[in-house]
Formats: sequence, structure tokens, C-alpha cells
Amino acid sequence: MIKVHLQFDLEPEQVTRLTKLLEPSVWLSLGQPALPADFEILVHGFPTREDLLASPRLHTLIIPWAGVPLETLDLVKEFPQIAVHNLPYNSGPTAEMAVALLLAAAKWVVPYDREFRQHHWGPLPGSGQGCVMLAGKTALILGYGRVGQGVAKACRGLGMHVVGVRRTPAPTDPEDVYGSDALPKLLPHAAALVICLPHTHETSGLLGERELTLLPQHAVLVNVARGEIVAEEALYHALKARRIFSAGIDVWYRYPPRHARGKARPTPPSNFPFHELDNVVMSPHRAGWSAETEDLRITHLAALLNAAAGDEPMPNRVDLSRGY
Amino acid sequence: MIKVHLQFDLEPEQVTRLTKLLEPSVWLSLGQPALPADFEILVHGFPTREDLLASPRLHTLIIPWAGVPLETLDLVKEFPQIAVHNLPYNSGPTAEMAVALLLAAAKWVVPYDREFRQHHWGPLPGSGQGCVMLAGKTALILGYGRVGQGVAKACRGLGMHVVGVRRTPAPTDPEDVYGSDALPKLLPHAAALVICLPHTHETSGLLGERELTLLPQHAVLVNVARGEIVAEEALYHALKARRIFSAGIDVWYRYPPRHARGKARPTPPSNFPFHELDNVVMSPHRAGWSAETEDLRITHLAALLNAAAGDEPMPNRVDLSRGY
Repeated sequence: MIKVHLQFDLEPEQVTRLTKLLEPSVWLSLGQPALPADFEILVHGFPTREDLLASPRLHTLIIPWAGVPLETLDLVKEFPQIAVHNLPYNSGPTAEMAVALLLAAAKWVVPYDREFRQHHWGPLPGSGQGCVMLAGKTALILGYGRVGQGVAKACRGLGMHVVGVRRTPAPTDPEDVYGSDALPKLLPHAAALVICLPHTHETSGLLGERELTLLPQHAVLVNVARGEIVAEEALYHALKARRIFSAGIDVWYRYPPRHARGKARPTPPSNFPFHELDNVVMSPHRAGWSAETEDLRITHLAALLNAAAGDEPMPNRVDLSRGY
Repeated sequence: MIKVHLQFDLEPEQVTRLTKLLEPSVWLSLGQPALPADFEILVHGFPTREDLLASPRLHTLIIPWAGVPLETLDLVKEFPQIAVHNLPYNSGPTAEMAVALLLAAAKWVVPYDREFRQHHWGPLPGSGQGCVMLAGKTALILGYGRVGQGVAKACRGLGMHVVGVRRTPAPTDPEDVYGSDALPKLLPHAAALVICLPHTHETSGLLGERELTLLPQHAVLVNVARGEIVAEEALYHALKARRIFSAGIDVWYRYPPRHARGKARPTPPSNFPFHELDNVVMSPHRAGWSAETEDLRITHLAALLNAAAGDEPMPNRVDLSRGY
């Protein structure tokens, strides 16, 4: 028997689905403040120190999405007895959204739609033709995990040449995957720069003003990873001054209070007015959303918990020294 | 020596480029009303009967884009001595725009951007998650020429299963290309329906109310061919009633007067208020636009004219009985 405490908003029908999928030997408790004293597994993305101290038997923390928040990563390192796992269940929708944002930004789909709803047909002033071609050019993909490899496949289908960058190129990677030290040499060739890296101390600010300046003027930048990977002010100014062609951005610099999305007062996602720019496609951190994959989250979570109950190895363990 | 009359708006720098590319034996005249009496080749998309009667030596009409307007097709059939050629130079940008519209529509990129510029983070009311997944589903591509095959490649890169429909499947086509009689059987399986057909008498109204009803509710429709191929009212109602998920539409039912785009008074593109719908991405017939390929138009035109001057066969001849 294994005791699991779930501190993570789930719709009632998802809870029902989860309980049906679990082995009888998994005992599930839910919600605050009823923290049981002896749980062994905690499902929670942003646990406090108190949460991690609440049960002496706690040996596993499951982050119920892909990636580990930096604050959680730093906290859990103080508890060497706790293993961290995550649920990268939504890499499929994230990769598709990255490609959607890339193409929408490359073709200025949003401002052309807006003006055409006012029945204006001509080219938008200042947009050129509002179009860079991707075929035949280079897609530079930062982070060559599940999401990055999905984006790579789509970019090849668009006739692009794909170059990947990852912390540690694997022997099974295709030839064109490099370590991050190659970045300064690669950036000047990137027509598309798609950021799919995990957010770690190493990747924070990886793309600063210097790196953005290396991009060609026709470059399209896409970020579906974490805002902090790209320097906020430098990105804003590069877009405003048209030093790059456009960007599709799903991840930001300021967020509404946790659990208040949709209910909170309007929260600007940046200290800079990205919303005034025509050459940015703005997306409210929803790349991973998909009604079709919400079920997958539950399926993956059940698989992890059933593995633990059966004393089998749990998949998707996070290497805390790497941060992913 | 061959005399060519060009009745088609070109920027001065494009004219310069064209004259530089032409063999000395090509004589070029430009612009109305100075129609010379003895030109042999006319470059014009919408010639009048008078234009075609203006020179007894006229033997070739070049449409300076892909496809032939139906009215031009019908008119030129009265002149069996005139061969028609076209310039499908912009199939590359058109295919990319089709994929951009497909993804933007599948992910509701436009209304999410609009609301997020007001700093609203939550799911849009009535959008579900504003996302259908394409991976693992079927893309049905109507018209399997240059554009359709480009779209097919991109859809395969997105992990879709591709089925093509063309008038006459060729022996070299992959297995999953069917004749248009298969349409009723194929439509219920189409998660994406991408229309890249030439507009002919046969394809006018090919997708009527009955055909649209056969699509599944999660279907995304994209039209980069010609508006008339899809029944206007049926499409509007299918979108408004959410009988299909969304659409990305580049080609319309009402146009501003010719040569007045950008200058004309706002012209609604339909008799129905598509602009009130959140589940349509609206694009002002610009799929083929691309500053990078305008040069290609000139290069292709020069190649045709130089071939004629050298008494070599001219490429891209239109089969008037098929209409493309």
C-alpha cells in the first residue's frame, strides 16, 4: 500500500478517472489543508518547505507537468531523500503550438486578420509583404528533447534545414545537433529560432542582448519554454526596432497569482508593452493545453503511481543536478 | 525577334530586372493604351475580347500568376490560335500560408492573441481549449499539384496521415491519392481539409452544404484556392453553428475593383459576416505574396519569353479543356 497526497487542481471527472485507473493499493488523499501525516508521494508543482516536511515518509515528489519550476528545484535539493518526477504528457500539443506560432509570426497572420476584419485588403503599411519564407532556410532548435524533436520534424516537413542545440548531444542524435557553446556560430544562420529548453539556472538569460543581436533581420523567434530564458528588455527592443522580423511568444515575464488565471484582474505579461507590437504573436502560456491530452496527464500520473505501488521503477525521473 | 505586350502592373525596378533578363530578340511594350498592332505574346490576366483581337499575330497569352480566371478561360476558348501559359511561381509561399492558416485555425491563435493583448490569461469562453490536435489525424488535400504536394509534405511533418484528391490521379502519385468521386467517403475522416484546387467549371461549388455536413465536428477547413469552390452560405453557417471547428480562409466571394486593392473603399469579402466569427482566420487573398518570390515571377516570365524568342517550347501551358 502506498499513500499519495495530491495538491493540484483537478476537475471532479478527472479525479474519478484517476481513481478508476489506480491499483487498489494506492491510497489517494486530496486538497488542502487536510495534509495526512504519513503520505509517501506528493503530487504538487510548487510545494513549500512545510509541505516537504509534513510527512517523514515522503520519498517522491511528482510535478504534474513538464519541467520543474526553479524555486521547486532549489528547494527540493535540500531533501536528498526525495526523488522528483514529472509528467511530460503534453509535448505533442506544445510542439504543434510552437509550429503554429512560428508560422503565424512568419506570415503576420494576426495583424492581417485584424485589418481584414475591417475589410482592408492591401498590404499592411510597414509589413513589407508580411511574410518571410521558411522553406530552404535554417531552423535552429534550442532544446532537443520531446518538444524540440517534434518541432524539428515539422520544420523538415516545411522544407527547412534543422539544426538542434542541447546541453549534451547524444550519440543517437542526427549530425546537426550541437552543444550550447556552438550558439554564437549558429545564431547568424537562424531563420527560425525555436526555444524548447528546460528552464534551469544554466538556461536563465541564455539569450541576452548579445545573442539576439547575432540573429539575422529576417529571423522569427519562438519561445514555448520559459520567459526567463530570453532577456525581456532586449527581446522587446529587438522586435520594436525590427532588428528581427517577428516572434511568437507563449511564455512570459509576469504571471497572475497562481490558481487565479482566468479569475484574476488583467495582468500584463511583461514590463514592456509587447501588446503594442504588430510583429509579435501573443499567447497566454497555453502551448500545452489540449482537451485531448488532459486525459493523458491522468493516464501518465496513474502509470507513475501504479509503478510505485508495484515497487517498479517510476518513469520520468528528474536529474536534479541538470534540472530536468 | 518576338514582340511582347505586357499589360500588368509591375514596379519600375521589376521592369528593369525583366528587361535585363530578356534576350535582345524580345521586344517589350508596356501599359495601356499604347497597344501595338503586331504583338505576338500578351501578358495579361484579364484580357478583354478587344485585347485578344488587337493583334492578328497574337499566338500566346501569359497569365502572370498561377491559375486562369474562369472568365479568361471561357473567352480564350473562342481563339483557338492562342495558347495560354501561366506562371505558377508562387506555389512555395502559397503552400506555407496554407499550413500557417491551418495551424492558426486549429489553435485559435487569433482570438487568443486579441484577448491576451488585453491581458486576459484564461481559456476563452466557448473555445474549449481553443485547440484541436493534428498529429495522428488525417489531412485531406484537394488538389494535388505543386501547392497540394507542398502542404502534404508539411502535414506529414506534423505527424498527420495525408490523403490527396485530384481530378486524375497519376501513376506516380503515392497510394493515398484518389479521384474526386471518392470525396463523400473521405470527408468524414478529414481533421484538416485543405483546398488547393484550380478553379474550373468542374470545381465551382465542389464543396456544397452536403459535403460540409460530412466533415467531422473537429475539422479545420483551409481554402487557398478560390472562394467559389466552397459554398459561401453553407460555410458561414457551418462555422457559426460550430458544425466544424474552424477555418483559415484566404480566398473570398467579393473583391474590391481590380487594381484598386489597398486604395479602394473597404470591401466586405462576403455577403455573410465572417468577420464576426472567432473560429475563422481571415486573410486578404495574400497566400502567394512574398517579397522573396516576386523576383521569381520575373525570372519565370523571362524564361517563358526567352524560350519563345529562341523558338523553344514554352513551359507551363494550360490545357484549356481541363482549365489548368
